[in-house]
Formats: sequence, C-alpha cells, structure tokens
Amino acid sequence: MVTLGLDIGGANLKFAIQDYGEIIYFPMWKKARDLENELRRISERFNPERVGVVITAELSDCFSCRNDGIIFVSDAVKKAFSSELFFMDIKGKLSKNIDEPKLFYASNWIASSEFLLMEGWRNFIFADMGSTTTDLIPITNRIKAARTDHERLKRGELLYFGILRTPIFYVLPKFDVPLTSEYFAITADAFIVTGDIGIKEYTCDTPDGREKSLKECMTRLARSVCLDADDEKYLTELAHAVKEKMVERVAEAMKELSEKHDIEKVVGCGIGEFILEKAAEMHELEYIPLSEHYKLAKLFPAYAIAKLVELE
Amino acid sequence: MVTLGLDIGGANLKFAIQDYGEIIYFPMWKKARDLENELRRISERFNPERVGVVITAELSDCFSCRNDGIIFVSDAVKKAFSSELFFMDIKGKLSKNIDEPKLFYASNWIASSEFLLMEGWRNFIFADMGSTTTDLIPITNRIKAARTDHERLKRGELLYFGILRTPIFYVLPKFDVPLTSEYFAITADAFIVTGDIGIKEYTCDTPDGREKSLKECMTRLARSVCLDADDEKYLTELAHAVKEKMVERVAEAMKELSEKHDIEKVVGCGIGEFILEKAAEMHELEYIPLSEHYKLAKLFPAYAIAKLVELE
Repeated sequence: MVTLGLDIGGANLKFAIQDYGEIIYFPMWKKARDLENELRRISERFNPERVGVVITAELSDCFSCRNDGIIFVSDAVKKAFSSELFFMDIKGKLSKNIDEPKLFYASNWIASSEFLLMEGWRNFIFADMGSTTTDLIPITNRIKAARTDHERLKRGELLYFGILRTPIFYVLPKFDVPLTSEYFAITADAFIVTGDIGIKEYTCDTPDGREKSLKECMTRLARSVCLDADDEKYLTELAHAVKEKMVERVAEAMKELSEKHDIEKVVGCGIGEFILEKAAEMHELEYIPLSEHYKLAKLFPAYAIAKLVELE
Repeated sequence: MVTLGLDIGGANLKFAIQDYGEIIYFPMWKKARDLENELRRISERFNPERVGVVITAELSDCFSCRNDGIIFVSDAVKKAFSSELFFMDIKGKLSKNIDEPKLFYASNWIASSEFLLMEGWRNFIFADMGSTTTDLIPITNRIKAARTDHERLKRGELLYFGILRTPIFYVLPKFDVPLTSEYFAITADAFIVTGDIGIKEYTCDTPDGREKSLKECMTRLARSVCLDADDEKYLTELAHAVKEKMVERVAEAMKELSEKHDIEKVVGCGIGEFILEKAAEMHELEYIPLSEHYKLAKLFPAYAIAKLVELE
C-alpha cells in the first residue's frame, strides 16, 4: 500500500512517500488559491492509496481565523486526492474527517512525537528546527508538551524562529547598534554569509526580491544596520552574531526543559539540525541527529504521518 | 515667492507649502517607478518657484545601495520640477546639485534642527516620531547628534520604531508569551485598539491586506501570539503593552541624552507626539509640543526645509 505523508505549513508544503520526500516553498499568504492544484500535482505523480495529513498553515493571515484555515486546507486536500485520507489531531488521533477544526491546529509535531514513541524512543527532547520555527518537545514515555502553540510559546516548547524566514532583528535586536525594524534581512541571509547553507537551500523568497548570492545577502544584512555592503568583515561578524544568538536561545530553552522534565537527551531534525546540535552541546546534553536514523529527517513530520497512517 | 518643501522618505512623501501640507503614503519599495509622476502631480498643483528637498528614502531595498537611492530620487525630483531646486546635505548646507550622494543620506532631521536653531530654540532634544522611526536630536546652541543613521542608532539618537509601520514584536518581544516573528501586526494595529489613532490616521497598508477596523486590528494582534480574536480584554492589554513599551524605550533614550548633554527640555513633533509627551513626562523632562508653535508639526522636516529655502 502506497501511503503519502503531507505536512501543510504556512510557508512550505512537505511530502514524504516511502523513502522519498520533497519540501516545496509554498507561501500560503500568496498562493492559497493554488493549493488545490499544487496538491493535485502531487496526487497525480504518486497516486497514493492513503494520505496522512498534518496542518500548521491555519495561522497564515490569508485566513480570517484558524478555524477557516483548517477548513480551507482540508477541503483542498479532499478535492485534490481521491485517496483514503487521515488527518491527525492534537491528541494524536487520526480521523477521516475534520469535525472540530480547533482540534487540528498545529499538529505536525504531534505526528513526529507519536511516531518516535512508537519506534521506542523514550526520555528525550524532540527538536525540529525548520525555516520559520523551532519545536522543542519534551517526551518521557509520553508527550509532555502543551497542545496549543500559544501555550507552547509560553513554555519555551515553540521558539518562533528558524533558519530561513526569520527577520534577523527578531533573534538579534542589537549588534553594535540596534537593528532597524524593516524587513531587510532574514536568517537565510545570515546563514549564506556564515556558509552554513548554500544558495540551493535558501528556498524562500529574498526580502528585497534580489538574488541569493553572497554579495546580495551581505547587502541585505548591511541595510538592517543602515549601511551599505562595504565592510565584509563587519557583516560577517554580524551574520555570526545572528547564528550565535540563535544557538544561545535554543540552548537556553533546551536547558530549561531538560531540568523541568529531568531529560538529558535531545533528538534533533529539520533543516536547522546544525543549530540544534550546537545548542545541545552548550549545556552538555546528549545530541542524537535523527538524520542518522531516518533518511527524511529534514521533513520529519511528513515522514512520520505517512508511517503512522501505514500502520493504521 | 512660493517655496515647496519636500521630505522624501522610504514610506511617505511629505510636502509643505506655506501653511498647507500633506503626508502621502508612498511605499518606495513598491512604487519607486511612480515617484517622478507623483512628484509631477505636486509640481503641477502648486507650481512652486523653489523646492527644498530632504531625502531619507535611499535606504529602501528597491535600491542596490544608498548612493543609487539618492541619485534615483534626486533625478526624479529634477525631472518633475522645473523650479529652482535646493537639496539639504547632512552638514545643513543647501546645494543645487548632488555631487557627492553620501552627503545627502538621511538629512530630513537636519532641516528640522537647523530651522529650529534659526528660530532661536536652544538647549533641547528635538524629537520627531513618525510612522517608522523616531529621531531624538540633542541640540545646545548647535546640533550635537551624529550625522549618519548607523552612528545615531548607536547613540540612541535614532530609534527604529514608529507609530504605524513597526512590527509589534520589535517593540514588545514578549507579552505573556514571546511574540511570533511573522509580519502579522504592526504598531498601527495596536494604536487603533488603544484608541490613540483613528482609521483615517492608519495611512499605511495593513499587514494582511484586510481592513483597518477595530475587529481586524484585533485579529492581527491575536495572530502574533498564535490566537484568534476571541478575547478582547487580553488583546486590548496586549495593545497597551505595545504602547507602554514604546513610551518606556523613548523615555530611556531621552533620559540618556538629557544627562549626556545636560538638557532638560524636549521639543516634539510628528504623528507620534502623544508618545513623545508621555515619554518626556516619565523622567520629568519639560515637554513642548511643536504643534502649539507650528501648524505643520506632523510633517515638520518638509515645513522646515521650505522655510530654510525661502530665506536662502
């Protein structure tokens, strides 16, 4: 039986089918109307018998409220696929229909967590750093995180920054000067300059619509402190400061959760694994990269929901 | 002689002619190509003999660098007006041509300061809070501020937030929960909810392209903490927290400059005067609203440059 896993986020569509997966940059706030067609293309390519779905796109401001977002997205899925559908809710339950939308807000990390529990993993912080956000989910022999994003923000289980789309002033309000509040530069610009990602991994749009080259990334960083890109040394330091601040903030949150739940181990995935690893090291937590255990660690929720549905 | 004052910013065009003035929302990053036509309309309406120009739009990311920005903007001015032109540089000098663009970066606060000095004002912090930024310029019997935005950021003479366009997480990173880093809500949304501005004063675009009504502003605030707009009391508190944080941060910067330069008086203008006044009060600095002395205090640099050019 061919099962497809779908993780429909606010900025990316991710899908996994057996050992194959893709991350498609899909800014929902611009392209919601194309969602059904985009999904139909996936459906036609793979013709899956079953599809497992997790949704986080409902917060996108193309929807009036999250309820409408869940309904819109799930309707698009229903229209695009003739397969048997399974939606995962925040309790980890799979349903063929969405009766109560609010139970389906931001459920992608639940699929990852439930799958890892099923695979026998215990006593760890499940960490998933993506383009936009970072999940830190304490798990003992069950999920100990809150079930809403608001509550997870409060507890440090959801850090609202990632390695591509986050305005740099969110993670680094001040360098040698306070940064401007304009949408001039994002974390992807910083990580091109630090060399942690290549141009191919800079999958989102640039803030100014220009190229993803080192020079243009430097120019964007420069603007954020009211400069031009003359001083490469200074701008490289700025990029590294962004990275260090992200590592520090993740490390701090990991430490707090580790102490609260008496957990010493972090199991990490997502395109930001390189940050998660450094953060775990900072407070001497054991770090296990999921990429050593699973091929599709960069889009783990999509992989996990496919696996969970396969076993349903 | 009819003299027009023009303040060309990154988000607004402001002009003053005698006692009349207008602020036109003009997002340069979207509309740079229309600049010449927009200016031509102003030229044809008023047919001024002289035009005084100050520019801050050069930092906009529609330009590769600030040098190009100054050249682009000054070229548009030259093409649109057949009047005698005067550009003010960061030393306060008026020139008919721009030979060295870097001397013309971010000069609008210079015009205001020079004009106030000429009018006899002494020993004060000139404060101008606009849609996007806040200038705090210490003036004794001369301007004591740095002459570049980067250096002014460092010294607290430029605060990069204002009462309309600033993402709320820039001024309030954390409420009861850390705010998300999405461009969901701006300070204008908060000030609609606090009642400090009306819909007509919300002159910039909304982040989600929806209405400027109280309900939609609340929805935008709610998104920024991963909620819907159910709890009006909570969201009103959030809006007030944004305001209070802005007042605090302005107050802190005022206090520092006041102590450094031994100045006890703040002279304020701009659409954010209501914040400046509260900030000055916080540390018992004397506050003088320029609106009690000049009709066009909301677009003071445009008014000031017109007056300075009149006397040239």
